[in-house]
Amino acid sequence: MGNFNEWHDIWYSEYCMKDVKLSYKVDFLLSEQTPFQKLEIMRNGTFGTFMTLDGFVQVTERDEFIYHEMISHVPMAVNPDIKKVLIIGGGDGGAAREVSRYGSIEKIDMIEIDEAVVSACKKYIPKTADILSSEPRLNLKFEDGIAFVKKAEGKSYDLILVDSTDPEPDAPGAGLFTAEFYGDCFRILTDDGILINQHESAFFDEEREDMKRAHKMLKGIFPIAKVYGFNIPTYASGYWYFGFASKKYDPLIDHKTEDWEKFGIKTNYYNADIHKACFALPNYVKDILETV
Amino acid sequence: MGNFNEWHDIWYSEYCMKDVKLSYKVDFLLSEQTPFQKLEIMRNGTFGTFMTLDGFVQVTERDEFIYHEMISHVPMAVNPDIKKVLIIGGGDGGAAREVSRYGSIEKIDMIEIDEAVVSACKKYIPKTADILSSEPRLNLKFEDGIAFVKKAEGKSYDLILVDSTDPEPDAPGAGLFTAEFYGDCFRILTDDGILINQHESAFFDEEREDMKRAHKMLKGIFPIAKVYGFNIPTYASGYWYFGFASKKYDPLIDHKTEDWEKFGIKTNYYNADIHKACFALPNYVKDILETV
Repeated sequence: MGNFNEWHDIWYSEYCMKDVKLSYKVDFLLSEQTPFQKLEIMRNGTFGTFMTLDGFVQVTERDEFIYHEMISHVPMAVNPDIKKVLIIGGGDGGAAREVSRYGSIEKIDMIEIDEAVVSACKKYIPKTADILSSEPRLNLKFEDGIAFVKKAEGKSYDLILVDSTDPEPDAPGAGLFTAEFYGDCFRILTDDGILINQHESAFFDEEREDMKRAHKMLKGIFPIAKVYGFNIPTYASGYWYFGFASKKYDPLIDHKTEDWEKFGIKTNYYNADIHKACFALPNYVKDILETV
Repeated sequence: MGNFNEWHDIWYSEYCMKDVKLSYKVDFLLSEQTPFQKLEIMRNGTFGTFMTLDGFVQVTERDEFIYHEMISHVPMAVNPDIKKVLIIGGGDGGAAREVSRYGSIEKIDMIEIDEAVVSACKKYIPKTADILSSEPRLNLKFEDGIAFVKKAEGKSYDLILVDSTDPEPDAPGAGLFTAEFYGDCFRILTDDGILINQHESAFFDEEREDMKRAHKMLKGIFPIAKVYGFNIPTYASGYWYFGFASKKYDPLIDHKTEDWEKFGIKTNYYNADIHKACFALPNYVKDILETV
């Protein structure tokens, strides 16, 4: 018998548009239908082990640092006194890992709808998920984030990170892109609270519409609603955005460079220059957001 | 006979790494071997008509504005008195088009090695190439840019734009990534001259090595050598860099926002905030450049 490995390969392709796709040569490690979504774990030589949900790359070992540093350190450098954090989604653990690096944070509540995501990431992507087994300040609950914020009482959180999938119809992420959900988040944030949410992207049609919709809703609820971007190669167009919605703090006027430097946190993407720069938007993106 | 169009399609794929590729569903419009390189023109529904050289996307109708605005307006906002411009390469015409928008510029010399590129772009991508037929200040010569700058005398240019292909071995772009070439450019620049060059990218292995090499050489020749980046979806990783090498002006300290606004040039990507932001580098990119 010959070596058949040289006679086949498997390519995972993700479509940016119907006629543009980004593909990875892979080995399949796991493919399962959870109660909420299709979950697959693959391995690619360049990007390492990665997870897809419903056919969208969520996290790769090679470039996850970009997403997770940008979702967490930007708000921490605007309000270094953040003590109580709520993470909605984020089952890979990357956001929890970055937030856990702040000794000053007292409590991290994490609400992930799909336990299978956490189990798979703990097994296959410990780089992000190990923290979910070891962090004593973390309270991880498997429930619907929408229902959780609806029933939560009081102004309980200084920071909410909405680390969700895309708002595809019927997908778990869809309800996290609604005015009702953002309104509940506003209600349970302290008076200087900040919400960061996965905010889609501006270049391709579908993500652009989702981005406009999210921005419009956040602008209607929070006194301050900005977006900031970062270069992440595995997301469509290579550039993705977070929303920065806030009751009091402006992400640039209230950027506290020196206070943040005192934390002594070593980062691979984020720094003070990037903080200031990431809020600068190309004209075509400004036009998109100004028309909402 | 049935409609066979539904029974086939053609995908053009460009490899970022051996196991990662970006693919476009295309119709082929032109495929020719020029004396210098393989030239292909294709059409994709999302990105419009685009040109590849030796199997690398050079220019697409849909996102060329990003590259061409960033190569031209950044130096013009640092020294709005630029009068004499030399473009090396740039056969698609996009850089010439953007530079031509400045009424204050007196002369644009453009040295493109491959006449076939200009002919093809005039026919298939008039959006960028029309200017090459209509601009009276433009002197377009078909010759080797390396030889041109070697024999050029005097300090003849305020700005040199090196709008080249990648430095693949034996490709026309390779000689444009050498200390000898950059040294000749330095010699023919005025005392406040600026050179902008295609500077590759930081994420994937091959481009990263090219980027380090280019930066090292420019740092050894010019008193000021910085890099600046921009999000362009059709280039590997979605993010690409230009080098800003200068005899006198710092791109941030000498950024002349108001002078540039007076030109009244409407842009789709570039603006004053982007100018300041594009020089901010992620830590992993700073690390790469600091080790050269």
